[in-house]
Amino acid sequence: MINLRLVLRQVGLLLLVISAALLAVTLATSQWLGFGVYDLRTTRSMLQAVCVGVAGGLVLWLFGRKCRSFIGHREALLLVALSWLVGAVVAALPYFFWAGGGSNTHPFTSFVGCYFEAMSGLSTTGATVLAEVESLPRGLLLWRAVTQWLGGLGIVVLFVAVLPSLGVGGKKLFQVEATGPTSQGVRPRVRETARLLWLIYLGFTCVEMALLCFFGMPVFDAACHTFSTVASGGFSSQNAGIGGYDSVAITGTIILFMLLAGINFGIYYQLLRGRWNMLWRDPEFRCYGGILLLGSIIVVWQLYGGRIVLTSGKLIESAGFADALVHGVFQVISLHTGTGFCTADFDQWGVVPKALLVGLMFVGGSAGSTSGGVKVIRCLVAAKVIIAEIERVFRPAVVRTIKAGRWAVDPELRQATVVYLLIIVLIAVAATVILMFLQPQLDITTAAMASIATLNNIGPGLAGVGAMSNYGWFEPASQLVMCVLMVMGRLEIYAILVLFLPGFWRSE
Amino acid sequence: MINLRLVLRQVGLLLLVISAALLAVTLATSQWLGFGVYDLRTTRSMLQAVCVGVAGGLVLWLFGRKCRSFIGHREALLLVALSWLVGAVVAALPYFFWAGGGSNTHPFTSFVGCYFEAMSGLSTTGATVLAEVESLPRGLLLWRAVTQWLGGLGIVVLFVAVLPSLGVGGKKLFQVEATGPTSQGVRPRVRETARLLWLIYLGFTCVEMALLCFFGMPVFDAACHTFSTVASGGFSSQNAGIGGYDSVAITGTIILFMLLAGINFGIYYQLLRGRWNMLWRDPEFRCYGGILLLGSIIVVWQLYGGRIVLTSGKLIESAGFADALVHGVFQVISLHTGTGFCTADFDQWGVVPKALLVGLMFVGGSAGSTSGGVKVIRCLVAAKVIIAEIERVFRPAVVRTIKAGRWAVDPELRQATVVYLLIIVLIAVAATVILMFLQPQLDITTAAMASIATLNNIGPGLAGVGAMSNYGWFEPASQLVMCVLMVMGRLEIYAILVLFLPGFWRSE
Repeated sequence: MINLRLVLRQVGLLLLVISAALLAVTLATSQWLGFGVYDLRTTRSMLQAVCVGVAGGLVLWLFGRKCRSFIGHREALLLVALSWLVGAVVAALPYFFWAGGGSNTHPFTSFVGCYFEAMSGLSTTGATVLAEVESLPRGLLLWRAVTQWLGGLGIVVLFVAVLPSLGVGGKKLFQVEATGPTSQGVRPRVRETARLLWLIYLGFTCVEMALLCFFGMPVFDAACHTFSTVASGGFSSQNAGIGGYDSVAITGTIILFMLLAGINFGIYYQLLRGRWNMLWRDPEFRCYGGILLLGSIIVVWQLYGGRIVLTSGKLIESAGFADALVHGVFQVISLHTGTGFCTADFDQWGVVPKALLVGLMFVGGSAGSTSGGVKVIRCLVAAKVIIAEIERVFRPAVVRTIKAGRWAVDPELRQATVVYLLIIVLIAVAATVILMFLQPQLDITTAAMASIATLNNIGPGLAGVGAMSNYGWFEPASQLVMCVLMVMGRLEIYAILVLFLPGFWRSE
Repeated sequence: MINLRLVLRQVGLLLLVISAALLAVTLATSQWLGFGVYDLRTTRSMLQAVCVGVAGGLVLWLFGRKCRSFIGHREALLLVALSWLVGAVVAALPYFFWAGGGSNTHPFTSFVGCYFEAMSGLSTTGATVLAEVESLPRGLLLWRAVTQWLGGLGIVVLFVAVLPSLGVGGKKLFQVEATGPTSQGVRPRVRETARLLWLIYLGFTCVEMALLCFFGMPVFDAACHTFSTVASGGFSSQNAGIGGYDSVAITGTIILFMLLAGINFGIYYQLLRGRWNMLWRDPEFRCYGGILLLGSIIVVWQLYGGRIVLTSGKLIESAGFADALVHGVFQVISLHTGTGFCTADFDQWGVVPKALLVGLMFVGGSAGSTSGGVKVIRCLVAAKVIIAEIERVFRPAVVRTIKAGRWAVDPELRQATVVYLLIIVLIAVAATVILMFLQPQLDITTAAMASIATLNNIGPGLAGVGAMSNYGWFEPASQLVMCVLMVMGRLEIYAILVLFLPGFWRSE
């Protein structure tokens, strides 16, 4: 039997944590403390959401009060999956209460739309249902940004860091929620590690925000974009996204922090302890850098001399080297790390840069970072396995060990990696078919890109879900499918897939 | 060092075999013996091709006369790859000589077009560059059909069966060229097995041809369609394909033999020895039957009551059960086995049947059959590996053995299977991008389907390469890419992929 009471109690606690975060955002943007213009309706709807969240959290917590404190593999998986699925409900409430239910045509009058936005935030996808972001009040804009920040390193991990109640189960939770196949950087004392990672994360947040303010971005916008950048999210507080600032300093700062957010946070931990050589020894880091460099060179070369349409609507008729460099590099890093910020409408670029960008969406950033995709290390291992497999055809007798840096990849992990990639591809294909079935008028590019961009936690794709579009026009059923894709992508599939396996629920 | 001389000598011998087959077709369709109307130009161009083939074969044979007779893994791979790549050149010559080079706009005036048609035949893809098949003389029509028949069980295997010169190397060649991961049915004495398989193949050919003639198909057409069916090819001697006959008996006969051609020929070998229970014990056969049954039910259900446009141009406004059954089952079996015959324009069907048919194209028939795709057994093993991998997440301690029927799949083969599927997907995606790069005006469905339909040796796809279209409008560069895809698909990738690996050519 799964220890369901324990799971529910912990989910209850998590709802309380999310409600507390929402309360903080409410206060920060209310008339008394905050950035905000006085807006009673927004504050009221956010407080309503806090009340519902607290009430729901307390009920679940009380229900699971008396239970054994054992967390096995199944409990860890179920707890993490439920935390995200239920957490997004609470995170969606402020939008829903604000829009006021059914009286107008705002995308937030549908609860599914609100849930999509909340899940998109928590999973750091950054896909929005809104065509007009700027019409939202500041309270909700900040809440959108904060959901990404909470989801970036993992809400449950945050929870492990803050609450002492989980004991040894914390490590299992950490492994389910952290990204990537390795547990590099996970020290024996999980709480300490979790705290340290969150401190590093907090550090990046403060530095980036300071820099953005310094370069002339308004404080409120700087906060929103910072939360979005370090979490590899992609929500912007402006309709035109980053392209709206048209400032090289701001674009450069965001490029830098997207880059940093795509690196394994375990490496920063090592750097803090003075082990600088870790950086060059780490095969994933080298590969990540190489991909970014090569990808940028190709995209910049293809953009040079061509037409670039910025998201602000500005048109560059013949791109000079500087324009090609800034917009090319920005887009490569933004989509490779799964952030999804845009300065230019890359849907209008050529076949080569578009194919490359879609490929990078699948690759994603490093394991243990806040980014999406299947992670660089998995691609690296899979590439080596594929080459070894081809060699085996003409040298069947040779025993091959596969190494990533100094680390020998054991056969079990090799198989797991290749299977993972295959599952991702199959899910992307299946989701494309399901979306086309639900909305037969969809063209295949839009359906495929909507699947890929949500499954890999990117945000914008091509065609109907391109940089200048949004997800608000999808039907609720399609939006729900994409919610599942987003949480699957963020939790690296298994935590959600196991729920569909009868064996998972069978008592042993 | 690769024993290149031996490889070239054997390729030379193979060219002689192909030339002999071409000579036989020429005689059969000439004025003296054959089906044909007297047509000096066709006979002359075919004889010219025979001369070039014989000359080329002799040169290669003489060049490699003095050599060691050792065939290692690399020699086997190179020999098979070269046999197909060079064999298709000779097979393309009759088309090219007939069209007469550059003087008009016939697709065959480009040698690449002829090579495409020849490779499409040998690899049993059945994709054609011709819009007007019926404008070809009978000699060339029969040759198109015969190339498929030669390629169906494998030209090199035929060669092993006929020529005594290969000794122990024959087994290695057999393993490279036969389809699927298992060597089930390959007896220790390879020559005998190869002969027996060809005899079974010949038996099917005779029976189907007799049945088609009996049901009223003209003898010449019956010969062409029989060669095409048992090889899972797909070339027709009519513009309208099988839909042109509009006869349930003929359609039914072809359904039956497509079905038989998609089964492992090793099973027939067992049946001939009286082991009938092999049929029900074989996991791949059961799975193959299950997929066909389930796929047919879904497609027939979706077609029922809808509009079906036949390839003959006839329109069924509201399909009754009989129509839905005949055309649905025909198309499912035709695309699942990679034959690629069409009775109806399935491009106009709904999302569900189309997605299902494309999925079946990837699955393909059984290992050791003449069909295309990745083969049922690989899909079966991969599905079990995926489920085991998901289960491992919540039950990490359990050691799992994966069984297909009574056969336990060892870990090495598990990994090889999953890697194979991943490689196929990656190649299909890469080919789609390459085609779109070569011809930027291509829509993505056409590019993707052209890749999928050639890589899996199907023939027709959707959109620009649908049942009513052809491959003649592609540019030569794209056609060459598809030639590589076809031979990769037929030889199950590795024999071609190894040629790109530097290690393959390095001396040991």
